[in-house]
Amino acid sequence: MEVDFLAQAQVTIVGLGLMGGSLAAALSTARACRKIVGVARRQLTLTTARMLRFIDEGAEDLQAGVQEADLVVLATPVRDILEKIGIIGPMLKPGAVLMDVGSTKAAICEAMGRLPAHVQPIGAHPMCGKESSGLTMAEPDLYRDRTFVLVPLERTSDAAFGLARELVLAVGARPLLLDAYRHDDLVAAISHLPYLLAVTLVAAAEQLDRDDGLMWELAAGGFRDTSRVAAGSIPMMLDILATNRTPILQALHEAQRQLAQIESLLQAGDLQSLRLILEAARRRRMEVYQ
Amino acid sequence: MEVDFLAQAQVTIVGLGLMGGSLAAALSTARACRKIVGVARRQLTLTTARMLRFIDEGAEDLQAGVQEADLVVLATPVRDILEKIGIIGPMLKPGAVLMDVGSTKAAICEAMGRLPAHVQPIGAHPMCGKESSGLTMAEPDLYRDRTFVLVPLERTSDAAFGLARELVLAVGARPLLLDAYRHDDLVAAISHLPYLLAVTLVAAAEQLDRDDGLMWELAAGGFRDTSRVAAGSIPMMLDILATNRTPILQALHEAQRQLAQIESLLQAGDLQSLRLILEAARRRRMEVYQ
Repeated sequence: MEVDFLAQAQVTIVGLGLMGGSLAAALSTARACRKIVGVARRQLTLTTARMLRFIDEGAEDLQAGVQEADLVVLATPVRDILEKIGIIGPMLKPGAVLMDVGSTKAAICEAMGRLPAHVQPIGAHPMCGKESSGLTMAEPDLYRDRTFVLVPLERTSDAAFGLARELVLAVGARPLLLDAYRHDDLVAAISHLPYLLAVTLVAAAEQLDRDDGLMWELAAGGFRDTSRVAAGSIPMMLDILATNRTPILQALHEAQRQLAQIESLLQAGDLQSLRLILEAARRRRMEVYQ
Repeated sequence: MEVDFLAQAQVTIVGLGLMGGSLAAALSTARACRKIVGVARRQLTLTTARMLRFIDEGAEDLQAGVQEADLVVLATPVRDILEKIGIIGPMLKPGAVLMDVGSTKAAICEAMGRLPAHVQPIGAHPMCGKESSGLTMAEPDLYRDRTFVLVPLERTSDAAFGLARELVLAVGARPLLLDAYRHDDLVAAISHLPYLLAVTLVAAAEQLDRDDGLMWELAAGGFRDTSRVAAGSIPMMLDILATNRTPILQALHEAQRQLAQIESLLQAGDLQSLRLILEAARRRRMEVYQ
């Protein structure tokens, strides 16, 4: 039996870090559902989430937290989501919707395809985040005005899709329907490549440094912004690298090609060709951000 | 005859863009000198700077603007600074201090070494900026709490150095003494490399895009921050590339080495080695920014 509307649903969020905690906070603030249950490994996290009124109930045990849920949202790093998809099926009631907010979608949606027939799976990925992680960084407005990708499977029912879409709208985000593979190609270029270039920048500067502290004394806004995402969560990024290898390798290859071209033009002193590259990048950057 | 204190000095700022305009604004707000003269090519710029009370007087003609100055600050892109150093000597009164705030220092300090003996030259580079340029973006607090590199030449007198140092302190910045070549090596890694990596990111994303707009719809905070400096001023960056080629090529080489290493580890699925690289970058990034 499926619940038709979010307002009648018990939503269980598994993982109360930045993403899961903010989702609970947003749903709770909007009074969007009947009941919010949080699942976390540590009692302290659950107590904090309850005190913040992000959740109505907490559970350390996955089965206890999800068995009554109409909609379960998995909000842990990708490889943990994959592990939970492998065991959660028998714990869910018939018609329950299983959604995730993991950073890559192909591996997750493939695993979701192997869930028992009584479960309604749908992949999702909200395009937001911060370099700081954890429940203490969570905020109800994290999803507001952000793109929230939805990746239904062939088996996903209209009702299940509708419930997921209601959740996206309830937290103030914009739903965007995408295929899992197309999603993974896009985020490789727009999210995983920026991360690896930020890491490259910090690692290269470190190599060029002479350990006298001068380099960091000179570091101004350009370095700060370009390197910001290098401070992101390592477990999250390792899971992304592990589950989106081919698209990321393609993006890295393209970045290396561009960098080699810039190097060879600079080596040749061809400032006119360099100008064209810099102008195209400047124009595109300015188009994308107003 | 040299002026001993900034309070008695006429300061002429050549170029009233973001850097020159903000310098005029800071000096004016602090009432740090006797008189501020601005030199700009366009009458409208001078009128605006006067209306904003950034300058006391404006001059379209370089000679007219600098002939009475005790301290001249060249605040245009690097190649324009080089051109002006080549012609400004005979226009300056004996003992006048000639300073610049250009982004690279070796080429400028070499040119300053060829100035007539009656001029007191000193190179400088404040470590700040924005991706938006022009007088309308200028603000008196641009230099506050920023590192302001000073590069005295062997011929620079103590009095000239003292006057430049007074100016740095007057705008709220921290003076840092550096050799021109060391400065250029450092900014290649900490400022010019971030710019070229931001350009690389935008160019690579553009290549991987399928022109359906989806990529930019998905672009979140990571892409925005990592690409921000790609929107910077093209004339300024081309002058930097033209005058700091060897250090930038070295930094590009190191970045390509790091990127190739990340690629080969990912290709091999060696997540344990990748973890060490990501952790080192994260640790360094967090150390640098509190």
